Amino acid sequence: MYGLNELSSSDLEAYRAALRRDFERVRARTEALVAPLSAEDCQIQSMPDASPTKWHLAHTTWFWETFLLKPMRAGYETPDPVYDFMFNSYYEAVGPRHARSRRGMVTRPSLEGVLSYRAFVTDAMGRFLDETEEAAFAKAARLIETGLAHEEQHQELILTDIKHALYQNPAKPAAYPRPPTAGGAPASGWTTFEGGLNEFGAPATGFSFDNEHPRHKVWLEGFALANHPVTNGDVRAFIDDGGYRTPALWLSAGWAQVQAEGWDAPLYWEKRDGAWFEHTLHGEQPLDNTAPAAHLSYFEADAIAEWMGPRLPTEAELELAAAAAPEGRSHVAGACAHPAAASDAPLGGFYGEVWQWTTSSYGPYPGYRRPKGAIGEYNGKFMSGQYVLKGSSCATPPGHARATYRNFFYPGDRWQFTGLRLAKDV
Amino acid sequence: MYGLNELSSSDLEAYRAALRRDFERVRARTEALVAPLSAEDCQIQSMPDASPTKWHLAHTTWFWETFLLKPMRAGYETPDPVYDFMFNSYYEAVGPRHARSRRGMVTRPSLEGVLSYRAFVTDAMGRFLDETEEAAFAKAARLIETGLAHEEQHQELILTDIKHALYQNPAKPAAYPRPPTAGGAPASGWTTFEGGLNEFGAPATGFSFDNEHPRHKVWLEGFALANHPVTNGDVRAFIDDGGYRTPALWLSAGWAQVQAEGWDAPLYWEKRDGAWFEHTLHGEQPLDNTAPAAHLSYFEADAIAEWMGPRLPTEAELELAAAAAPEGRSHVAGACAHPAAASDAPLGGFYGEVWQWTTSSYGPYPGYRRPKGAIGEYNGKFMSGQYVLKGSSCATPPGHARATYRNFFYPGDRWQFTGLRLAKDV
Amino acid sequence: MYGLNELSSSDLEAYRAALRRDFERVRARTEALVAPLSAEDCQIQSMPDASPTKWHLAHTTWFWETFLLKPMRAGYETPDPVYDFMFNSYYEAVGPRHARSRRGMVTRPSLEGVLSYRAFVTDAMGRFLDETEEAAFAKAARLIETGLAHEEQHQELILTDIKHALYQNPAKPAAYPRPPTAGGAPASGWTTFEGGLNEFGAPATGFSFDNEHPRHKVWLEGFALANHPVTNGDVRAFIDDGGYRTPALWLSAGWAQVQAEGWDAPLYWEKRDGAWFEHTLHGEQPLDNTAPAAHLSYFEADAIAEWMGPRLPTEAELELAAAAAPEGRSHVAGACAHPAAASDAPLGGFYGEVWQWTTSSYGPYPGYRRPKGAIGEYNGKFMSGQYVLKGSSCATPPGHARATYRNFFYPGDRWQFTGLRLAKDV
Amino acid sequence: MYGLNELSSSDLEAYRAALRRDFERVRARTEALVAPLSAEDCQIQSMPDASPTKWHLAHTTWFWETFLLKPMRAGYETPDPVYDFMFNSYYEAVGPRHARSRRGMVTRPSLEGVLSYRAFVTDAMGRFLDETEEAAFAKAARLIETGLAHEEQHQELILTDIKHALYQNPAKPAAYPRPPTAGGAPASGWTTFEGGLNEFGAPATGFSFDNEHPRHKVWLEGFALANHPVTNGDVRAFIDDGGYRTPALWLSAGWAQVQAEGWDAPLYWEKRDGAWFEHTLHGEQPLDNTAPAAHLSYFEADAIAEWMGPRLPTEAELELAAAAAPEGRSHVAGACAHPAAASDAPLGGFYGEVWQWTTSSYGPYPGYRRPKGAIGEYNGKFMSGQYVLKGSSCATPPGHARATYRNFFYPGDRWQFTGLRLAKDV
Repeated sequence: MYGLNELSSSDLEAYRAALRRDFERVRARTEALVAPLSAEDCQIQSMPDASPTKWHLAHTTWFWETFLLKPMRAGYETPDPVYDFMFNSYYEAVGPRHARSRRGMVTRPSLEGVLSYRAFVTDAMGRFLDETEEAAFAKAARLIETGLAHEEQHQELILTDIKHALYQNPAKPAAYPRPPTAGGAPASGWTTFEGGLNEFGAPATGFSFDNEHPRHKVWLEGFALANHPVTNGDVRAFIDDGGYRTPALWLSAGWAQVQAEGWDAPLYWEKRDGAWFEHTLHGEQPLDNTAPAAHLSYFEADAIAEWMGPRLPTEAELELAAAAAPEGRSHVAGACAHPAAASDAPLGGFYGEVWQWTTSSYGPYPGYRRPKGAIGEYNGKFMSGQYVLKGSSCATPPGHARATYRNFFYPGDRWQFTGLRLAKDV
Repeated sequence: MYGLNELSSSDLEAYRAALRRDFERVRARTEALVAPLSAEDCQIQSMPDASPTKWHLAHTTWFWETFLLKPMRAGYETPDPVYDFMFNSYYEAVGPRHARSRRGMVTRPSLEGVLSYRAFVTDAMGRFLDETEEAAFAKAARLIETGLAHEEQHQELILTDIKHALYQNPAKPAAYPRPPTAGGAPASGWTTFEGGLNEFGAPATGFSFDNEHPRHKVWLEGFALANHPVTNGDVRAFIDDGGYRTPALWLSAGWAQVQAEGWDAPLYWEKRDGAWFEHTLHGEQPLDNTAPAAHLSYFEADAIAEWMGPRLPTEAELELAAAAAPEGRSHVAGACAHPAAASDAPLGGFYGEVWQWTTSSYGPYPGYRRPKGAIGEYNGKFMSGQYVLKGSSCATPPGHARATYRNFFYPGDRWQFTGLRLAKDV
Repeated sequence: MYGLNELSSSDLEAYRAALRRDFERVRARTEALVAPLSAEDCQIQSMPDASPTKWHLAHTTWFWETFLLKPMRAGYETPDPVYDFMFNSYYEAVGPRHARSRRGMVTRPSLEGVLSYRAFVTDAMGRFLDETEEAAFAKAARLIETGLAHEEQHQELILTDIKHALYQNPAKPAAYPRPPTAGGAPASGWTTFEGGLNEFGAPATGFSFDNEHPRHKVWLEGFALANHPVTNGDVRAFIDDGGYRTPALWLSAGWAQVQAEGWDAPLYWEKRDGAWFEHTLHGEQPLDNTAPAAHLSYFEADAIAEWMGPRLPTEAELELAAAAAPEGRSHVAGACAHPAAASDAPLGGFYGEVWQWTTSSYGPYPGYRRPKGAIGEYNGKFMSGQYVLKGSSCATPPGHARATYRNFFYPGDRWQFTGLRLAKDV
Repeated sequence: MYGLNELSSSDLEAYRAALRRDFERVRARTEALVAPLSAEDCQIQSMPDASPTKWHLAHTTWFWETFLLKPMRAGYETPDPVYDFMFNSYYEAVGPRHARSRRGMVTRPSLEGVLSYRAFVTDAMGRFLDETEEAAFAKAARLIETGLAHEEQHQELILTDIKHALYQNPAKPAAYPRPPTAGGAPASGWTTFEGGLNEFGAPATGFSFDNEHPRHKVWLEGFALANHPVTNGDVRAFIDDGGYRTPALWLSAGWAQVQAEGWDAPLYWEKRDGAWFEHTLHGEQPLDNTAPAAHLSYFEADAIAEWMGPRLPTEAELELAAAAAPEGRSHVAGACAHPAAASDAPLGGFYGEVWQWTTSSYGPYPGYRRPKGAIGEYNGKFMSGQYVLKGSSCATPPGHARATYRNFFYPGDRWQFTGLRLAKDV
């Protein structure tokens, strides 16, 4: 959305062609994720924070309709005006919307109907991209980039939400077949970073969200980061040492949640006859001790860091370190089985394994102002009560994340692929 | 269940043939009700009191498996052992069960899978009915009658629950096409009954539930009953007179619920631009003033009776009067549009329109003892906090109800086809 | 309220003098109950169902003001108009009122202030009783009787509520010094009653509440009642046999409450080092096995009866039997320590030990119509969801209860002195 | 707690004498605040976040007992061992404790009993301070400073909590007589501050809490702060412009709370017949437009800043600016009526009017590690979900706050004297 410079006409056409290809690719990838699921799987909402797969399919389509086709494509008509009410997520400026916690109650349109709605809008957007005047395209381009990033975010949510949905089933079925895993011992040791006054936040060029701006200076002392995320084996040791029963390790609000919800292990873990298992997108599997631990709330990440020592990193520390991180591994749809990081590069597993909690509350950067209008509701209004996570997870679409990307969740949220990496002062 | 006398061998075979036909008919009717619904429609649970259609399909099948096939059919094997956990409703004696409020979370088996499960069990029961020894059949017959009545009860719940489920959809879609309606002015006037000491409860022969026993004497003073149920027009007058805003008309617990849930009309009613509409199984329809009012809680029925005067009847009064009631009208699947009672027979609409609330709490008859074992949980353990309803509704399967039948719901329940008929002392 | 016939002028004056004495006695008794309590004790509300002692003191005073002094005593002025809002309990017809669950939040007037309010109103009522014209007195007399019965009902609630309030204190302090107890083995055996058609409900003369009317006929089969209430020893045997862990013994709603609230013994019981103790109005005491069991909900009473066999009685059975019950024992303020029934008279402990749960839902008698106006809210609007109890408890003021008296509570309520007596068919 | 250097023996004795005087002064001030309140006023807890006055009196006494007298004073015996359970607030390391939300349920000890407990402990501490050996005193001194600061924090809470408690009373009574107010027009304009790399956090000497450490560098851009806090008049304009009905102004979580709790004005405001009133410690008063607005949640502060523009300050900005703030005004007990800032010094009202919300989440400073043991629970474990406030309020004891002081509350909390000051970039 930020930093799209004025381009020459031929550059603009090349850019248009690239966006056209990205659009086709992203839309197709969303549908590929859903292909192995049944109409029933796509219907349900397992908790208020999650959404039905069908809703994700429709909402990502509603976005194109609402922000691109309706305002910019003359003569565009929606297949059904009720969709505007049904598939709005949280944009107050766009009008009233269906209650979030009741999304699973909408059985019609059916999955088939939603796929038709997608095809209709994909086609209309394709023609818009092909046919629109240069000036109009230039005006639309930033919104299209936002729409692509938005749909990719929902691709990750489709995976986390269907995992939670199928977990409700006593048979704990698989969403996807199990991919071949190429595990191995995680990297060891620490990588050290010098402190000083550095700039953070997204540069003026290339796509980024509003919350990554403006670029600003932060002073950091020197620090070091562990070369791999905390593993399942580490968390087992925490459990075995009574970590979930020791209030001194926990933040006060975290300890309250441990007690209220009876937490005694990460979400999806279950111990039977002395052996640990984990519900995955491929059904229940024996727990892999060398894999990075996932589905940890901030409260758990903080308590584990308090127990392992020394501490969690800050957002700025992880952003500074991102330069040392190898490229994210490539992913295939549904390949998310928390494989161990085979890489022994410094800072292994920064991308593509688990989102890494930071101690930084999700707030505005110095100089940030919430944009006006519906699109301004995208990020700014969520800036209270959440923590920033950096990197990306095994469920993140390839190429989606970047060093300045700010993911954010509430400290009690556990259903995302969230873990931690230790930090220390040097 | 009660009153099946010992029969001769040839009578027993005739009885077996009749049960065999009833079994096929009831199973087929259940599936016919579901035929117009989508996999998504059958998946969802709109509130804890309601159940998904798919669950009803599976649970009525589980019943045959659990109480007939597993204990009585040598070598019977269930298609999937997890179904026993998934589809048990409330039988503590049978073992643990899936939480009621999470029934809508089970996406697998799919609707198609549940229909296969039904076919498998229908077939196995058919062979059991054909092949079982005479002595074993005689032992099973009462349970089979119970199973048929049980499945018919769930047929009514399928209709009430899918109505509520589709009501969650902002588009308020239809479950079934609209049938031709043959309305007309409801009967007028009152029918008078003499008091005295009479016997109530089910006779020793013919099928009935345990809660209709034992037969016992009750003294009644003379009374009269209105010849038709209270109509939508009556309820509109109650609304127009401020009935929903007048605490003096309401029981204390009813008034608390009016305020807590913001009741200002019966469930499913909506006023737009001065005109009343009602959500039905055929989608939203203009309100028919002459039709019997449905979807009234006991609290509403009591307040309306307090306002119209003089009062609601007791269970014994309605049971005594049932002799004067014409046979229930025949029904076709999905024909439930609250048509007005065309009959001007005394006591019109006793069967086949709306269940009629009584002031009688649902409790044990004198001499009643809860049966032991799982089947004893069928009725007895619900004998607190609920009220008895008599008659039957437009959603009740033909021939299911009878004068001694005791339906029961909590006083705040509104999603059933429940209404009222006025009574007075004479 | 019912059945006060027209009296001659001299009879009326004698009646006036008697009421005058009763008024002084009842007002003084209320204050005597409160004398040993501190201002802090009288302030708090331990749960929404209970009320602060101070509120009881003020509300019983508000009643005289609202129904007698304001409408009937020319020139009467209340000490503070805000009291009308503060101390109304549930009379919708009288106007808005302070939320029930926030009664403990009113620190001003202080206890001392409320006692002054009492003295002011007691004095005004005394002058009203002394000075009012004969015709006005005749009109007021029924209301005065109601006011006396109302204040006596609150005397019992003062005891049950302060017991619950002090139970919140980790030190479990005593409200009153321990009285001498004169225990003994409870009576044994059964008393048999013939069935037939009998009349129930209050006669036309003498004071009674509206809900005891009209007198009406009920047919009963023959039955027998245990000669003593179920004892603490019986309940210990129920506990030892796993009664609180056996769903088959419980009503469905009762079992849900057992699980939700973790019930494993009656309210106020605690087991330490293998010995049972019970919190009482005199502080914690070792449990007396021979005393009648108290603080049982209907659900517990029903489960204990299911386990001990055969069953709980109905309201009509206990009312018929009341003729065989000895007079209630005399009571002194705060003497409530559940002493064992020393009497071996038939039907010992009918009055003065524990209220006895019946299987009869609290509903209207045939022919009952709720009175109009505020006083009509006294009983009628509570006729849903509750069960009738007969007899009286150790906390009931002497002479307050009678055979036709209908006490009523919700089936989950435990903080009253409620127990059970077994019944059986003969 | 931090930065008490080693002193010479005579300096140590002077320091001991000073602490002795401070101890007497602080203890006496607490009791002076309570003197005008009744036993009933001191008993109640109006919401889980607030505590009874009596509990504050006892808890601040328990602190001296638990952390000083029991571990350091040989032969000390508590008046009642149950107090340790009753009056522990949240120190898990010290043992189990009475549930926070049930603090208002403890009627015994009475207020008089708690004042005796205070006298007993004050006396024992006095003797400890007088008699303890020099080495032991040196060891205890930091804890004594913490105990004084702790008791002063509870002095402020006594005022905020009793204000909320008396607000529950329909008569909205006064806690204290109204003091003379010396209002005036608030200062106008802005004060500008240069950016750069500065040090923040408490210096090594003088008393401060652990959460103010370690001192660390933060880079700031230049900024300006308004010379006065936002006033009641400003908030009225916000209300009049529909601020409480405009979702675009609010953080998402804030808007949810606005709707769930029906916020349409600050806590304690009420509009009657077109005029605004405010409940104060002196009873209800007409709203003073020139006074600083108080009882605003962070959500309201943020929305008002969004509406007035440009923004809220950060913690570091306010801490940097504190050097420009005039000394806090002197206060007398109960003088808290939100008088307008008469000062026209730059940065008026930094101390002594309202705590000022910042956009900084309350988290650990770089290098901060939670101390071990019970005293480590004082601050560190609350570092999630809260925001930092700077300055002090009219209820803060004189001399208590300082530039590096970090107050913190949840973003929805409104019952503290919390307001805001606008900031802008320069």
